[in-house]
Amino acid sequence: MSRPYSLSQPLRLDAVQHWDIETEVAVVGFGIAGACAAIEARLAGATVTVFELAAVSGGSTALSGGEFYLGGNGGTAVQRAAGFEDATEDFREYLMMAGGANADEARVRCYAEGARDHFDWLVAQGVPFKGTYSAEKCLEPLTDDTLVWSGSEKAWPFAERARPAPRGHAAQLVGMGAGRVIMEKLTERVNALGIQTRYSARALALVADDDNRVHGLVVRIDGEPRVVRASKGVILCTGGFICNEDMVRRYVPAALKCPNPTSAGNDHGAGIQLGASVGGATIHMGEFFATRPMFPPDQLLNGILVNTTGQRFINEDAYHGRVTQYMMRQPGDHCWLLVDNAIFARPWVFQDIEISAAGETWEEVEAELGMPAGELVHTVTTYNRHAAGGQDPLWHKIPQYLRPLVEPPFAALNFGGDAVSGTSFTLGGLSTLPTGQVLTPDGNVIEGLYAAGRTACGIPRWGDGYSSGMSLGDSSFFGRQAGRHAANT
Amino acid sequence: MSRPYSLSQPLRLDAVQHWDIETEVAVVGFGIAGACAAIEARLAGATVTVFELAAVSGGSTALSGGEFYLGGNGGTAVQRAAGFEDATEDFREYLMMAGGANADEARVRCYAEGARDHFDWLVAQGVPFKGTYSAEKCLEPLTDDTLVWSGSEKAWPFAERARPAPRGHAAQLVGMGAGRVIMEKLTERVNALGIQTRYSARALALVADDDNRVHGLVVRIDGEPRVVRASKGVILCTGGFICNEDMVRRYVPAALKCPNPTSAGNDHGAGIQLGASVGGATIHMGEFFATRPMFPPDQLLNGILVNTTGQRFINEDAYHGRVTQYMMRQPGDHCWLLVDNAIFARPWVFQDIEISAAGETWEEVEAELGMPAGELVHTVTTYNRHAAGGQDPLWHKIPQYLRPLVEPPFAALNFGGDAVSGTSFTLGGLSTLPTGQVLTPDGNVIEGLYAAGRTACGIPRWGDGYSSGMSLGDSSFFGRQAGRHAANT
Repeated sequence: MSRPYSLSQPLRLDAVQHWDIETEVAVVGFGIAGACAAIEARLAGATVTVFELAAVSGGSTALSGGEFYLGGNGGTAVQRAAGFEDATEDFREYLMMAGGANADEARVRCYAEGARDHFDWLVAQGVPFKGTYSAEKCLEPLTDDTLVWSGSEKAWPFAERARPAPRGHAAQLVGMGAGRVIMEKLTERVNALGIQTRYSARALALVADDDNRVHGLVVRIDGEPRVVRASKGVILCTGGFICNEDMVRRYVPAALKCPNPTSAGNDHGAGIQLGASVGGATIHMGEFFATRPMFPPDQLLNGILVNTTGQRFINEDAYHGRVTQYMMRQPGDHCWLLVDNAIFARPWVFQDIEISAAGETWEEVEAELGMPAGELVHTVTTYNRHAAGGQDPLWHKIPQYLRPLVEPPFAALNFGGDAVSGTSFTLGGLSTLPTGQVLTPDGNVIEGLYAAGRTACGIPRWGDGYSSGMSLGDSSFFGRQAGRHAANT
Repeated sequence: MSRPYSLSQPLRLDAVQHWDIETEVAVVGFGIAGACAAIEARLAGATVTVFELAAVSGGSTALSGGEFYLGGNGGTAVQRAAGFEDATEDFREYLMMAGGANADEARVRCYAEGARDHFDWLVAQGVPFKGTYSAEKCLEPLTDDTLVWSGSEKAWPFAERARPAPRGHAAQLVGMGAGRVIMEKLTERVNALGIQTRYSARALALVADDDNRVHGLVVRIDGEPRVVRASKGVILCTGGFICNEDMVRRYVPAALKCPNPTSAGNDHGAGIQLGASVGGATIHMGEFFATRPMFPPDQLLNGILVNTTGQRFINEDAYHGRVTQYMMRQPGDHCWLLVDNAIFARPWVFQDIEISAAGETWEEVEAELGMPAGELVHTVTTYNRHAAGGQDPLWHKIPQYLRPLVEPPFAALNFGGDAVSGTSFTLGGLSTLPTGQVLTPDGNVIEGLYAAGRTACGIPRWGDGYSSGMSLGDSSFFGRQAGRHAANT
């Protein structure tokens, strides 16, 4: 081969001179999807090699909050211990609503039916869960509790159609970042099972025959390209593409507003590019998670969000990622959280938030924001009148956060994109079956190729519907499906 | 070859036994993009063959309104004759705003600088334009006039940043559907130039070497697969994918709400699938044009749109496709156009529109719609107060359509998705350079492969920013670029 290897062009099988490395299942990427794919493939009897670009395992999972979104079948052991039943039908309905028009019904059904057992499997692999419940609203638990409300379960319109239950299951760690505990335990498990691991190994290209059937890949190890035979399949688990500015610009330019990617730095889209090189379809590439969280402290959820017309536009107690998608859609990406003295605070993650206006009356705030006279005042007056009766007939915020905003001084906190930058990651990726098999645009299976985690487009595929724990839940569950299917090929 | 041909797997060059047909440039699809690509390639000296699935030329272009969105360089001959200057910078700025965060700057610049000359080229090919101007607001001209306002040029926020000019250039025909005149003339031109045309010819697969360089394609003619050598390139111009329900479901499920595709029936995404089969990137596949036009008659634009909270959400005089995108985003896809007796009419394309509520007072209408008391009344009262002074400080509708809604009876016309189904087509497609060359996800050129028209993702790539004439404008202009580049290879 005189040309350099390329993520966008497979090395053809008949050009392979010899195999440097032979394995049955090759897993690319050692975050949670790769770890679970490798373990499950090994448990099914296959020889497995994991190739990881970094010098250590973990990927972006290791810096995540370490939550899994799980339920169904009457509830996980932790849900039931805390007194929550969680019917599969409610769990399924919530996941379908979370997917919006984009929901993948087959994938959701598979997940809703299997998630409870998946929790037990995670426990069996050594992932620690304390087993306790915390009712406190949080971005991720700061305690070492397990079960938390991590989505829009209690919020409109979700609660109308799916009976609410807490479904975030966080690994045991006091403080943020329980993801690293998960990856430590899964890495121990990978090593104990005799799975081969090659670190500092960069995927360069797939190996495919003339029919685009995948037979292996080329990785660079110690500066040299090594041709790897994977007789049962290659599983792509390299994460999303939030760190690839060129791809972000091309596919999901709205995410450019969010300069703080939720990533360990290697979400370059390599797996997605490899999949596309043999005809894999990429779907929902314009969708992303983003957040500008207004809480903690959750007293701020008693405030109301308004846009430049002085109007509200969402129930402020919906999941923070959902609220953020709505914020970004307002004219000019301008919006403010209105608060009174009783609830005033600086949001925990935006301690330097701009106070765009303040006054002894809402008329003063309205004028200082340069809004048409009377509109913001009307919005607050209407909200206050209804809130005093525990109602929000316009946007359906739950009674817990309905308190009239009547104690001066009043203020408007700037949550517009010009003032507050949040974190983000991509939700689009390769189109796959629930088995992890990669599909072409017309729905044909590409033999020998799998994708899981954010390299695939998974259960979470719509910024409006994301809930915390959906990424680790989906990535670990469908990583396992891919590992099992490949091993049994 | 024992396996059947597949859009998602190229036939490998070394499996080709012999070429059934040889040409320099192969054009797939004989709508406007294919016609212009073929003409330009032929004018540059190449031998050209066009393969069309239908028994006749025309594609979806032939049933379109026949408008081209053109301007810049001080204006086309028609713009200048009508007294409109149109600076390249204003044209460029409008196109960039129309592309939103997704705009392709290189493509926009190329188009803005070349569009005026492109008009002259169309005239030279025989496309008839009367050369006259009509100031009347229309979906497409019913007269045989040329120049019309076909977008959001005069509307907020576009007019603030780009000096307005009419830029829709319609081919000469009394009545709707001038697209067929265009395709008749271009087909005559194709034939006169000695371009080969093969009708009832279905593309089955690309022919590519091991590096995914494209050398030709396989088409089925008279029931038999024919292997076609295209020594200078294959140009994919097969349209979008609005007729492929599986692809719509996977990529742009929101379009499922719009059961009336704007298509001659063959927008099955074949070209996009062929491009993906050799590693071509698909971009903005979730974007689409849709419309539920409120006018004609344009008196209805004096009404205001409200959602379930009784609030307005857009300037109603923006381009109808933009307004429709906002309609679809309202809670539950519910919205109503509020009208009074002075402006009441049934929209031209929705003669059976549902009148959801009517009354002698706005309070009655509000109650009949089941809205929280006082909200809709406040919205109308505020609107009326400002409109009486020729102002719309909230949503910036232009003074021409500001008339207080004060003459009873009052009514609410149902423009929600449950009541009014509009037309739609897809805007996502293959990622290309301005030359038409198809790109991989990491931005490498796929040698020998081009795409134009809705098979590529073009200037119009965001439902919120579409204007009438952008599809034919982009498809004809960039079809030419592809034809010229391929011929000069």
